[in-house]
Amino acid sequence: MKISGRNKLQGIVKEVVKGAVMAKVVVDYKGDEIVATITVDSIDDLGLKVGDEVTALIKSTEVMIIK
Amino acid sequence: MKISGRNKLQGIVKEVVKGAVMAKVVVDYKGDEIVATITVDSIDDLGLKVGDEVTALIKSTEVMIIK
Amino acid sequence: MKISGRNKLQGIVKEVVKGAVMAKVVVDYKGDEIVATITVDSIDDLGLKVGDEVTALIKSTEVMIIK
Amino acid sequence: MKISGRNKLQGIVKEVVKGAVMAKVVVDYKGDEIVATITVDSIDDLGLKVGDEVTALIKSTEVMIIK
Amino acid sequence: MKISGRNKLQGIVKEVVKGAVMAKVVVDYKGDEIVATITVDSIDDLGLKVGDEVTALIKSTEVMIIK
Amino acid sequence: MKISGRNKLQGIVKEVVKGAVMAKVVVDYKGDEIVATITVDSIDDLGLKVGDEVTALIKSTEVMIIK
Repeated sequence: MKISGRNKLQGIVKEVVKGAVMAKVVVDYKGDEIVATITVDSIDDLGLKVGDEVTALIKSTEVMIIK
Repeated sequence: MKISGRNKLQGIVKEVVKGAVMAKVVVDYKGDEIVATITVDSIDDLGLKVGDEVTALIKSTEVMIIK
Repeated sequence: MKISGRNKLQGIVKEVVKGAVMAKVVVDYKGDEIVATITVDSIDDLGLKVGDEVTALIKSTEVMIIK
Repeated sequence: MKISGRNKLQGIVKEVVKGAVMAKVVVDYKGDEIVATITVDSIDDLGLKVGDEVTALIKSTEVMIIK
Repeated sequence: MKISGRNKLQGIVKEVVKGAVMAKVVVDYKGDEIVATITVDSIDDLGLKVGDEVTALIKSTEVMIIK
Repeated sequence: MKISGRNKLQGIVKEVVKGAVMAKVVVDYKGDEIVATITVDSIDDLGLKVGDEVTALIKSTEVMIIK
């Protein structure tokens, strides 16, 4: 199975914060932090918890460049 | 100046491909590739070229998680 | 493997149009059309062609509602 | 009035969950579920409730493809 | 008909540039420029041309803040 | 420092509403309202409050056109 999204960054979950609808997931990626805000349903569906090995998936059209 | 976008990944531009309206920028980030698709105008405005030190800016709402 | 994106719509590719950087993919989904604009690299990476069974993946934060 | 967003999927609201700022809307679309996360203000502005006929609007640049 | 997207900015089209798949639309909005990149199909579907009165529609989850 | 995002709209913060994970920021922009939904962390990181001069940053790929 392949996904068209060009950016797949593998890391370890280091924090999960759940709200009523949205949740924050912080992933340790080679010493940096990648932050995702996804639905609480997704957290429960994937059974996400600290220590999990995950991939952060980001479509290239969502990436801006600063110089 | 601070930006609300939570993900700021610093790397080096390793490829720029320009279309008529959109352009692809590939950034070497800690040995991984981050791909951004931005407008050709942005490429010209920032004077983006291979070797530039840049930051990939990604809003947390645009990040999915795979487990 | 599970993906946090809440919307996964399965259909058949009915059209692929490649530009210099971006490409259009039209998926027949239960008689409706789902249109994705992804990079040409993704088309080549996935070997996308008419007739392929695919899933359109859409993060819930990207969906607006009209009433 | 026409909207540039290429994906307009018509369905029936089957669930609305409101948080402090964001809300989840689940739309029944030909037997599948489409999930949108929009602001609570949008829910109130549109008077969204279960049973409403709505259209899920999705820009093509927000659609990834899995094969 | 109401749309959940919170940002609706009315202006006049001042430029349209078409690529193979994507197109750029520049809208004059109270003396500022709003730039949209949409599909060429959308340009043709809406019959977009310079001088048209349009609304730029932006979901609130897509807006970052700089301070 | 330059950012590839094409849309930078300067205004004054007129409202901030914080949820558990997400927050709403309303910016007065030339008499119109621009609404951003960003993380609570971003609010705290930028020290955002009513009266602040800010810029709303929007990538062109996130802008739809209505005609």
